[in-house]
Amino acid sequence: MQKITTPTLLLDKDICKANIRRMANKAQQHNLRFKPHMKTHQSAQVGEWIKEAGVSAITVSSVAMAQYFAENGWEDITIAFPCNVGQVQALNELAQNISLTLLINKPKTVKLLEEHLTSPINTYIEINTGSARTGFTSDSITAIQELITAIKKTKYISWLGFYSHPGHSYRCRSQQQILEIHESVISQFKYLKNNIEPDFETFEICSGDTPCCSAAESFGPIDAISPGNFVFYDLMQNQIGSCTPSNIAVAMECPVVDKYPERNELIIHGGAVHFSKESITEKELTHYGAVVKKVDEHWEPLDHTPHLTKLSQEHGIIYCSNHVFKNYNIGDTITILPVHSCLTANLMGEYQLTDRDRITINMIK
Amino acid sequence: MQKITTPTLLLDKDICKANIRRMANKAQQHNLRFKPHMKTHQSAQVGEWIKEAGVSAITVSSVAMAQYFAENGWEDITIAFPCNVGQVQALNELAQNISLTLLINKPKTVKLLEEHLTSPINTYIEINTGSARTGFTSDSITAIQELITAIKKTKYISWLGFYSHPGHSYRCRSQQQILEIHESVISQFKYLKNNIEPDFETFEICSGDTPCCSAAESFGPIDAISPGNFVFYDLMQNQIGSCTPSNIAVAMECPVVDKYPERNELIIHGGAVHFSKESITEKELTHYGAVVKKVDEHWEPLDHTPHLTKLSQEHGIIYCSNHVFKNYNIGDTITILPVHSCLTANLMGEYQLTDRDRITINMIK
Repeated sequence: MQKITTPTLLLDKDICKANIRRMANKAQQHNLRFKPHMKTHQSAQVGEWIKEAGVSAITVSSVAMAQYFAENGWEDITIAFPCNVGQVQALNELAQNISLTLLINKPKTVKLLEEHLTSPINTYIEINTGSARTGFTSDSITAIQELITAIKKTKYISWLGFYSHPGHSYRCRSQQQILEIHESVISQFKYLKNNIEPDFETFEICSGDTPCCSAAESFGPIDAISPGNFVFYDLMQNQIGSCTPSNIAVAMECPVVDKYPERNELIIHGGAVHFSKESITEKELTHYGAVVKKVDEHWEPLDHTPHLTKLSQEHGIIYCSNHVFKNYNIGDTITILPVHSCLTANLMGEYQLTDRDRITINMIK
Repeated sequence: MQKITTPTLLLDKDICKANIRRMANKAQQHNLRFKPHMKTHQSAQVGEWIKEAGVSAITVSSVAMAQYFAENGWEDITIAFPCNVGQVQALNELAQNISLTLLINKPKTVKLLEEHLTSPINTYIEINTGSARTGFTSDSITAIQELITAIKKTKYISWLGFYSHPGHSYRCRSQQQILEIHESVISQFKYLKNNIEPDFETFEICSGDTPCCSAAESFGPIDAISPGNFVFYDLMQNQIGSCTPSNIAVAMECPVVDKYPERNELIIHGGAVHFSKESITEKELTHYGAVVKKVDEHWEPLDHTPHLTKLSQEHGIIYCSNHVFKNYNIGDTITILPVHSCLTANLMGEYQLTDRDRITINMIK
């Protein structure tokens, strides 16, 4: 086992596999199709663990990610991002080999796509259930029906149903608040289902976000779920109420390169190009990560948790209590849970497993 | 010239080369050694333009960056980051082939390094001129002299002088404020020079940050400068007062994939994994980028500038006035100046030149 000398993203396989199994079990128990989002881990190897949990259909957020997972054996992929018509050539190539589902929210997209499509694709229409990012509100029945009608007239595009990412759940700070959003999502889909013309009634509803899927125990008219972050979780999800710190499957291990007793600050190699600039504010402290104690192949909470309070491009500054400060010296490493695992993983590009073998597993390049 | 279909980082070679020439001329005019920091662009090709301006010594912020630029022909490299003793093997390999300068701030680092060094290196001692990140305050004369003495006793480490990154200049909002910080840096170095024992008097002072180096017209006891961001500048530097928008050499070009007239918002492919989550707040608006108008091979300011106001992993949301909103449609691209060019470039990994050839130039992998 080689000593860690540069910022390294650790992955605890046991925690990650348990997170995957828990969500897969919940989907099975509620008779939901499970189409996990791969944007958090972006890794073929983590994909294999997802496959082991019985998953056959996945969700991604870019054409590049769809290509990567198709090359790694996945045959049913949803690109949960408003269809980018400029990439129609890549979409045609993908659709020749796999079952490809897109998100289409505008008649103009149908028109531009239809002009260049040469292979069959499926599409969801996106419902804005409150995040106000993309999609129709659930009461836009006329516009939705017009779009479905336009889709049904095309040669290559099949309408599969509705998709929603209730990203406003990220503003929650408790399970109770998450469940209120989840109930609102369910009632919006019920309204849609009750008000759409009977002609259009056979469709799938896929709704995915880690907070709702983690907290909910009933799913109403929802047929499929596509959460992503749950494979790793992170401090943000802990703050939202989706997980506990013990569910967090990734941590950064960084060298301590300098220390300042007069201000109780450790300087680490680990900056914005490793953690990302995503922060959270807890008890009036804005930070980019929380220190944990590395114990053999795992990590444990630390009393008087120090936080990563400042980041520049390569430097991180950790403010510690006296109690903790004296335990870290120049030449040591320090282990830090990330605020937003998706962005940290995207920057790091690979994982080192914490088990005895300490192998490195890759991500999409 | 191929149409842009995915988020692309454009680089205007003319602006970039003019930025490099302007700073190189200023260094020459003031008899300063110019050791530009390469962390912003991280590109061998941009390095060649810097070489064309007569530069022979450069600054980087990691061992990996030093290795990359050494492989690309640079023979005098400063790693402006507290020396990470865990990487001593890589440092030995580098120091066999190039003139390598490190930052050492602690006797413990000297001790750990000396145990494993097999090649000669130079070192600066870092002075904390106000950023409170790393280094000694300029009045820590005794501690500084003890460290110099410890360094002078080693076999392989030569003491070169002092280094400072006055990063607190990033809190400035005008040239006047920047110059106040610059004057304070100068007076701190004068104090140091006047108070250090005569034995230690032959040394170099290198001070580098884009705001001070852009604004200052006198440098007092400073012998060398190592700014980095000036090659591209960005909206943050414009806000600080280091540049004008016409000096910004990079812009993101992103596909418009959806639009919402009821809230005047364009949805682009271009999110946190492209721009980074670095934001600035101007006139009470927090944003991640400002839209400009693409004109042939260049870009121009836009009336009623729309801003990139929300980012998720792959999505960006641009809020527009009515006037601008109607000019952008699904299938178009939109051009956006980044808030922090260093982090955007680091995420994007390559540049597309805006000149007629539209060639792609690479960064460190």
